[in-house]
Amino acid sequence: MMKTIVIDGLGLIGGSIALAIRQQWPQYKIIGVDINHHSLTYAKEREIIDDGFAQLQNCAGKADIILLAAPVSVILKHMDQLTQMQLKPGVIITDVGSTKKQIMAKASLFIDQGIHFIGGHPMAGSHKTTITASRANLFQSAYYFLISDTLNDRPSKKAVDELQALLFGLNVKWQLVSARQHDQIVAQISHLPHILASGLVNMAQDEFRGSTLSLKLAAGGFRSLTRIASSDPDMWTDILLSNRQTLIDKIDTFNELLQHVKAAILSSDRTAIRNYFRRAKITRDSINAQASSHSPNFYDLFVNIPDRVGSVAEVTRILTEAEINLINIHILEIREEINGVLQLSFSNQNDLADAACALKQHGLSVIRGE
Amino acid sequence: MMKTIVIDGLGLIGGSIALAIRQQWPQYKIIGVDINHHSLTYAKEREIIDDGFAQLQNCAGKADIILLAAPVSVILKHMDQLTQMQLKPGVIITDVGSTKKQIMAKASLFIDQGIHFIGGHPMAGSHKTTITASRANLFQSAYYFLISDTLNDRPSKKAVDELQALLFGLNVKWQLVSARQHDQIVAQISHLPHILASGLVNMAQDEFRGSTLSLKLAAGGFRSLTRIASSDPDMWTDILLSNRQTLIDKIDTFNELLQHVKAAILSSDRTAIRNYFRRAKITRDSINAQASSHSPNFYDLFVNIPDRVGSVAEVTRILTEAEINLINIHILEIREEINGVLQLSFSNQNDLADAACALKQHGLSVIRGE
Repeated sequence: MMKTIVIDGLGLIGGSIALAIRQQWPQYKIIGVDINHHSLTYAKEREIIDDGFAQLQNCAGKADIILLAAPVSVILKHMDQLTQMQLKPGVIITDVGSTKKQIMAKASLFIDQGIHFIGGHPMAGSHKTTITASRANLFQSAYYFLISDTLNDRPSKKAVDELQALLFGLNVKWQLVSARQHDQIVAQISHLPHILASGLVNMAQDEFRGSTLSLKLAAGGFRSLTRIASSDPDMWTDILLSNRQTLIDKIDTFNELLQHVKAAILSSDRTAIRNYFRRAKITRDSINAQASSHSPNFYDLFVNIPDRVGSVAEVTRILTEAEINLINIHILEIREEINGVLQLSFSNQNDLADAACALKQHGLSVIRGE
Repeated sequence: MMKTIVIDGLGLIGGSIALAIRQQWPQYKIIGVDINHHSLTYAKEREIIDDGFAQLQNCAGKADIILLAAPVSVILKHMDQLTQMQLKPGVIITDVGSTKKQIMAKASLFIDQGIHFIGGHPMAGSHKTTITASRANLFQSAYYFLISDTLNDRPSKKAVDELQALLFGLNVKWQLVSARQHDQIVAQISHLPHILASGLVNMAQDEFRGSTLSLKLAAGGFRSLTRIASSDPDMWTDILLSNRQTLIDKIDTFNELLQHVKAAILSSDRTAIRNYFRRAKITRDSINAQASSHSPNFYDLFVNIPDRVGSVAEVTRILTEAEINLINIHILEIREEINGVLQLSFSNQNDLADAACALKQHGLSVIRGE
């Protein structure tokens, strides 16, 4: 059956979802909306979309499914616009906004009109935001949150089935949470970390102002900790302002936690400090352990390699011959190991298993991953 | 000329320094000291040391140079012991402790006796602490701090020349700083980051207690930010307690900084939040830029690679044929790029230049690194 899909916002996420729908449902008509005509031209030239408009008003009425893929502040504006338009009966409206409380509050406008609204958020974990970086497999094995608040009756469950069928090609892991839960989770694992990383960078810059030492010395731990401070400032300003109360609470909680550490240092409380670090180590190590089998983004294999010319080439050659595609490859902290440990990441469990088998056949020692 | 070197503490650092001295000065006698007889046995069996003792008292008198390579708390105890011993005239005592104020304060005991004391700290950036991980090139291109406080007269400058000659094989970058500067720098780029990373992990654990979601969702940014929370709790407890006042000040400063962010969020001050993130991005990006040429640990080359089976293997094969040794290899955020970008790390600028040349000859596009 033919359907018309309107994707409002042709950035990395809108573009990647369009590509995935195109692959899965070539007969569907995909209409893109973006005020940036470069994005529209790019999307049309590469047939990511069939047709493009600058304004949602000019095409929303034709849609069976409307996917709002703009920043949260824009999604909220366009939700207001949609309530003023004549939409197809049975239309499904969904969004991919980074925070959910504000959006789900406004969603009641649709629910009251008997229009299905499904709040969503695919966890791409990407800094890039332009359509030129789009790829159908961007969300491969990633988590895709659906917001339970508006999904408690039978008709809306049918709408969810329809949306999941439409987005089947994304190969995501669906996760049902409430809007409140969602905003708590992303504040904890994404928003607060961004605030801390950027704060640490700014503080280091203040500390070292005028010195030539600072940046040269900032290596290893500091660099991996502050990597996310390179993200898009405008995008993150928007995200923070859409999750204000949750983040204010998080900052307060983190400050209290730092006050406890400070008190322990002040009183030279060795036990308290050791427990603080030990507890964190146990939790963090368990994340690593999980990552090797349950990572939302990839499946990891760990292989011992001798620290000599050609050892990495041997591993990659074996995988190439076995026609197994590497998502990522990384030598773990070689300075800290007796031998190098090579971390190989694959997009699925089968590739991982095949790789482990092939490497063992060539006499390499697989540490973890099967 | 024959010299006797006593290395007190056969951990990763003591062992690695012994190996580097052995390579550079095979005729020197290296005596190891450690209460752990397993470490002594391991070091003797592998001829990392010529002779081993459990107690510093039993060998310190023979030493031309004494290198204190234990944790700070132990170094301080052993400094007291050394002041009670009969040492060789002209002996040089040096240390590799993670913090310097306490140690340099105690160093005055030696200076008063006309004994040379040189405070030092090589930045290995390693979590591992056992001798089994030792390697002569552990500090290759890393920074090695020397503490200026006791190095202002001609004789002590001669002693520094002697120490630098002894450790020539480490291939470090020497950096002169005061004890106060040193402890400020490591607090900023190492100690505070460890406190923040561990705090974030502990807070996330509290947040998600009872939920199965948490650890599975903690991917990407969260994982790289909290990697250092897996470090040795005992080692870090010791480090924190040896840098108490500096860290208390750092925690206060960071709290103030978080209060400013909180205020900006409370008042929805878009400009303040954007400036906070933008400033951090500019600084952090400049660290990346520097890293490609001035990293204390390695030299990076960035290469475009098509996202297909075998593309990584081709690059590593080319490097193997050119007999260039890779320190590290990493596909950068392939989800965020149109093509994959391969980051190749080398131990020196020559290897990097040779690699860039070899890859270009094979038609690969080198983005950055020469």
